[in-house]
Amino acid sequence: MEPLLKQSRSLCPFLKKTAPSTLRSLSTSSSPSAGGGTMSNLQVVARRCPVMSKALAVQSVRHSSSAAFGKCATGISHIQKRNLVVPSKAVKFNAGQPAHAQAADLEDIHRKIGVYDAGNPEKPFCPHGQAALHAAKLAGKLTPPNGTRTTRPTKVFSKSTECTAKFDYEAFYQNEIDKKHKDKSYRYFNNINRLAKDFPQAHLDTLDKLVTSWCSNDYLGMGRNAEVLKAMHETLDMYGAGAGGTRNISGHNKHAIELEASLAKLHSKEAALVFSSCFVANDATLATMGSKMPDCVFLSDSLNHSSMIQGIRHSGAKKMVFKHNDLEDLEAKLASLPLHVPKIIAFESVYSMCGSIGPIEEICDLAEKYGALTFLDEVHAVGMYGPHGAGVAEHLDWEAHAAGRPKGTIMDRIDIITGTLGKAYGCVGGYIAGSARFVDTIRSLAPGFIFTTSLPPATMAGATAAIEYQYAFDGDRKLQQEHVAIVKKNLEQRGFPVIPNPSHIVPVLVGSAELARKASDMLLEDHGIYVQAINYPTVPKGQERLRITPTPGHTEKFRKQLYSALEDVWTTLGLKRTADWELEGGLCGVGEKDAPKVEPIWTAEQLQGTVAPLKIAEQPAMKAGRSSVTVDPIMEKEVGYSAGIVA
Amino acid sequence: MEPLLKQSRSLCPFLKKTAPSTLRSLSTSSSPSAGGGTMSNLQVVARRCPVMSKALAVQSVRHSSSAAFGKCATGISHIQKRNLVVPSKAVKFNAGQPAHAQAADLEDIHRKIGVYDAGNPEKPFCPHGQAALHAAKLAGKLTPPNGTRTTRPTKVFSKSTECTAKFDYEAFYQNEIDKKHKDKSYRYFNNINRLAKDFPQAHLDTLDKLVTSWCSNDYLGMGRNAEVLKAMHETLDMYGAGAGGTRNISGHNKHAIELEASLAKLHSKEAALVFSSCFVANDATLATMGSKMPDCVFLSDSLNHSSMIQGIRHSGAKKMVFKHNDLEDLEAKLASLPLHVPKIIAFESVYSMCGSIGPIEEICDLAEKYGALTFLDEVHAVGMYGPHGAGVAEHLDWEAHAAGRPKGTIMDRIDIITGTLGKAYGCVGGYIAGSARFVDTIRSLAPGFIFTTSLPPATMAGATAAIEYQYAFDGDRKLQQEHVAIVKKNLEQRGFPVIPNPSHIVPVLVGSAELARKASDMLLEDHGIYVQAINYPTVPKGQERLRITPTPGHTEKFRKQLYSALEDVWTTLGLKRTADWELEGGLCGVGEKDAPKVEPIWTAEQLQGTVAPLKIAEQPAMKAGRSSVTVDPIMEKEVGYSAGIVA
Repeated sequence: MEPLLKQSRSLCPFLKKTAPSTLRSLSTSSSPSAGGGTMSNLQVVARRCPVMSKALAVQSVRHSSSAAFGKCATGISHIQKRNLVVPSKAVKFNAGQPAHAQAADLEDIHRKIGVYDAGNPEKPFCPHGQAALHAAKLAGKLTPPNGTRTTRPTKVFSKSTECTAKFDYEAFYQNEIDKKHKDKSYRYFNNINRLAKDFPQAHLDTLDKLVTSWCSNDYLGMGRNAEVLKAMHETLDMYGAGAGGTRNISGHNKHAIELEASLAKLHSKEAALVFSSCFVANDATLATMGSKMPDCVFLSDSLNHSSMIQGIRHSGAKKMVFKHNDLEDLEAKLASLPLHVPKIIAFESVYSMCGSIGPIEEICDLAEKYGALTFLDEVHAVGMYGPHGAGVAEHLDWEAHAAGRPKGTIMDRIDIITGTLGKAYGCVGGYIAGSARFVDTIRSLAPGFIFTTSLPPATMAGATAAIEYQYAFDGDRKLQQEHVAIVKKNLEQRGFPVIPNPSHIVPVLVGSAELARKASDMLLEDHGIYVQAINYPTVPKGQERLRITPTPGHTEKFRKQLYSALEDVWTTLGLKRTADWELEGGLCGVGEKDAPKVEPIWTAEQLQGTVAPLKIAEQPAMKAGRSSVTVDPIMEKEVGYSAGIVA
Repeated sequence: MEPLLKQSRSLCPFLKKTAPSTLRSLSTSSSPSAGGGTMSNLQVVARRCPVMSKALAVQSVRHSSSAAFGKCATGISHIQKRNLVVPSKAVKFNAGQPAHAQAADLEDIHRKIGVYDAGNPEKPFCPHGQAALHAAKLAGKLTPPNGTRTTRPTKVFSKSTECTAKFDYEAFYQNEIDKKHKDKSYRYFNNINRLAKDFPQAHLDTLDKLVTSWCSNDYLGMGRNAEVLKAMHETLDMYGAGAGGTRNISGHNKHAIELEASLAKLHSKEAALVFSSCFVANDATLATMGSKMPDCVFLSDSLNHSSMIQGIRHSGAKKMVFKHNDLEDLEAKLASLPLHVPKIIAFESVYSMCGSIGPIEEICDLAEKYGALTFLDEVHAVGMYGPHGAGVAEHLDWEAHAAGRPKGTIMDRIDIITGTLGKAYGCVGGYIAGSARFVDTIRSLAPGFIFTTSLPPATMAGATAAIEYQYAFDGDRKLQQEHVAIVKKNLEQRGFPVIPNPSHIVPVLVGSAELARKASDMLLEDHGIYVQAINYPTVPKGQERLRITPTPGHTEKFRKQLYSALEDVWTTLGLKRTADWELEGGLCGVGEKDAPKVEPIWTAEQLQGTVAPLKIAEQPAMKAGRSSVTVDPIMEKEVGYSAGIVA
């Protein structure tokens, strides 16, 4: 027996008890692998081992990539390392691998880092991994995880004098940046300075370069609302620029109390809690819930925002991803779990990149049936849906909420609502709302809440003003919906591939990172229109798009500029129109045969009494209610749009 | 053989090959356990198994706690669950346990959730864990991890009809809150409204209830600085309340560009990047670095802030905790790692709760010797140390930086500096600074940066104004240091147990959560002085303290009030003075024999030319440099303090 294998056998319970003939047999019989190829049964076993799986990963990476950024590429490559924090990819091969940081003792870390001692490259840190791999090599057959079979094992561990060199950090950075350039996902930020008094216009680097912003998430223009700005100016003068501390140490004040009271009222919940952002709110809340609740399982919509994915990952809890808005898939997964196990269904109301809306009521039904909590992210809906702007959950029971009867409504049945103060409310910050005990638990346990400076008093005062303004006045969001309907209709009639959806998002499919970026650049440079290209990782590769967000400020003048600019760009770049997508079988609901017709969630009835844009601009402090101003139908004469009612 | 064991053996490579006699032998021979007790060798082996370790944890928890919050306490308890995300505790027992969230397939999750199917409590999800535990039970000896040996195995798995009940989420919350009440770590927030024009005073819930804040992290009063407020008002009017998007989508603007340029200049680095907070900056940066760099190992100071601990944990990388400021321990750990492995030494300049200062230069030496990156958190130092307010790293090479020669300085040798805009700079937000490639890598990869709304333009403009102000004018921080020295000297002379340290933090030891809270309440209610009690988890249990932060605004009038209020509180509550701590052998440097004398990092020479407080208050826009105003020595006559020079 080889000395290495011998040494390993003294440590590994599995190898110790297994004859070389058995190992050889295990390594020749094969099972189907997750990647579509086959792998030996020895590999199946080995991948359950925290140490061996790492050694295999090294090999796999060597097979699939020859890029080396450091001078000494021993150990796990960056590619495998990334997999460690992308559970959906990693778990198939590394089910037994510890991925949270570990304050392990020296010996434990030595076992895990790479395979060799730098001073003595032949001495394995991990006899188990080394020996098991060696056994497989002896057997002469190793199938890497990517499914390509090789009969000659690659030389994975070789004595190298380079191992005495230090790690080259700058080369590592450069390699990461190069990868982004290579796959066209490198981001160039546009310098966009949105002008409060000329909303929705902005200037570029200098004041004279004016453009119209068509992709801001200041969906209602509340960032320039007179009441918001007044509250902020006054608070700045009286209470200064910053909070001066965490909520526990000097950073708790009446502004926080009032803001959280407004948010609790908005969502008809017992309590609310404000965070630096909704990214932090989602991350901190889900991470805390999942790590504290015994055996918690997350059921997560496949299109959930990065902040939820991160929070779930950070919780260390189990996750089941259900197909986007697919109730059957969700129910199958819920039903597969024991009733007593705590479950959290994490989903969104409006999915920001495609504009789809979650089946909130049906998810509530399933949650109640299977004993799950509902965690609803209303980030792209608060301020814009419902009689008080509380979001889609409120919108679904319009009459009850308008009449002040929240009990038993869908919003009432949702356990946890999260939202932002940085989009429709025009400021910055995020929050959670739910039962008093839930909020107190997160308040008491979440590091991302406890150990961070509070939002500035002026920010909180401005956000409170925005929430209260939208609570009392629905003119902005109605006008926004009008403009959305008009833009969608006009773009569709021109054959632009608008991804159908019932919300205020107008995603126009491009299908190429490079072309989406070119289209965005052309719009900005040639037409003074700013629409950011949305590329991977924000959307899947091949589904790149322009994402247009009409606001109450996007009046006819701006809309006409948009249509003609898009015409020019689509023609010049030869971008696909809906008919082209149809020929290819369709994508994302564009050009798909038999796709169900999507109706906007704001009904024609709900839009009655929409206020004209001019009136709104002239009366920023108006809280007139929804029937006090006459309708001013906005007509896009060039395509025959003829009514204020959404078709 | 028992049917369960038989079933398990068909699945587990270890059990399949092991005779019952061997198992029995393994379970009787014992090894020392990390908890101080002993455990059987079978347990040592079993704890390496992802499934078995969970089953053992259930048992451990049943031993150590009978608290059950749900109706069905099958599976991992909340206590064990918490261990999963506290690697330093968990890793010893769960080295092979996957702790990141996993989008696993159904079968995988079923294996991991609890041990029983709710519908069929006798059917194990995990034959491996069940069988191995069973084998141990057969052997009659099981030692739980807490070190107390039992000869009668506890009944871990029992058939229970309660398993058909749903999880009781509200009971879970209540239990978590009850635990906080029980260990006195439940936090009550004080409503403190800091008044810009009456700094350092604040009002409580109503305007007439005035108090003096002695614990804000607005260390220099920059939150009320006239230049900061002017910049914010102007930016609010011109650019509105919020950024309106992420940096990539409509939220990048000249304010961000200017702020990052100011920060890069401040730290003499190629680039900087702004985040929602420094909690997010630390978390996102460390998590990204650790997850992307192959085989990365963190070396983390034991007193590091929660944000760094979280970032390291979230990275999934290995962590070695070195003793606070202990260079020998750090070097031993560095030397134990192969040279080529990437390493990040994460530490702080000023540790906020004890005021100690990290040995930055020596850590740079070690980093260079062992090929490690240095990651320095200057959150509690930026604005307050150095000729330009860049922090302690700059302070250590005062002359070079004052002369504009940063090359080769300690600050220049630090790879990554992180800081906040929410403390000495008086606003909100955090940042990183380092090489252009490093910053571009984090900018391109960190979800916590990419997927979150930018800071508002006014916040960024205010922060830029604050940085530039402190860059050009050092009067505020000198005066702060004067006041700190005076307060420390006066408190020490009165026998108050000030934890010695070289920085601007004045921690006064109490040593009891309940008494610290009472002292804080008495100060507020009886004396109009707000000093928050600092309890667990911010400081270790038994080291509870009041943390006092003198600012340039804490003039003699306020200081005298503080001294007499503390006298009253210490006497009334019978709190220990330094002499009492001395009798007990001392704690945290208080009353410890032969403790080395700690000198302030600001030298007497550096403090020459300190500006009188009144002058500063009268000249908020002054950027006079450090020798343009005459010294006004501040005398605490009641204790004989007699010079503006720090003794």
